[in-house]
Amino acid sequence: MTIFSKIIAGDIPCYKIAEDDRYFAFLDINPVAKGHVLVVPKQETDYLFDLDDTLLSGMTLFAKRIAKAQKKAIACRRIGVAVLGMEVPHAHIHLIPLNQETDLNFFKPKQSFSPDEMQAIAAAIRAELE
Amino acid sequence: MTIFSKIIAGDIPCYKIAEDDRYFAFLDINPVAKGHVLVVPKQETDYLFDLDDTLLSGMTLFAKRIAKAQKKAIACRRIGVAVLGMEVPHAHIHLIPLNQETDLNFFKPKQSFSPDEMQAIAAAIRAELE
Repeated sequence: MTIFSKIIAGDIPCYKIAEDDRYFAFLDINPVAKGHVLVVPKQETDYLFDLDDTLLSGMTLFAKRIAKAQKKAIACRRIGVAVLGMEVPHAHIHLIPLNQETDLNFFKPKQSFSPDEMQAIAAAIRAELE
Repeated sequence: MTIFSKIIAGDIPCYKIAEDDRYFAFLDINPVAKGHVLVVPKQETDYLFDLDDTLLSGMTLFAKRIAKAQKKAIACRRIGVAVLGMEVPHAHIHLIPLNQETDLNFFKPKQSFSPDEMQAIAAAIRAELE
């Protein structure tokens, strides 16, 4: 069971953004930028492009819905996307609020927010979901 | 007309990988890694998440087809994905062969290949397209 499956099951706490029958979204605990969200399929699949066409295109549209809420809730120019996926063997899309291209950089020190701040960020994004 | 529309129109040369009626793929001229491909919609749209659902999910499946060919043609563990999109106002998905997570880093010196090498890389990826 991957760490993401444990989060989906509620065995590990998270700052949840949204879920439906196939996908789950929550705040990245080591954010590259404020409001950084991870989107994962509930079905454990290591590599994004091994998802079948239906699940992959559905995940993209689920991510689009999250990104639209992030853009309204977080001061940013747009939402960047990244899939690296070597650390956790469970496909995940990073959705990262960007003000400049250098905001999408996984190799600089991560940002840090208190639990209260993380809860407030998650609540602000959830409030903008359609 | 964006630089990508000029590439699609053939007014600016590129190392083409594939196209259909809605999308176009070609080698990034300033690759982060060997075999780095850009996928763009033929319809000029600045921001990825402004694409309508049909065009966005179709773009994801077009990118999946390219990524499968890249993975066969280029020595790598998997294909990473990134969308930053602030330099050219025409949505584009970066598909980047990764051997380690740090290969997806836009802020290190770019790689350089000769025109012959770029042609050979493009031909190798095209040969693996299904």
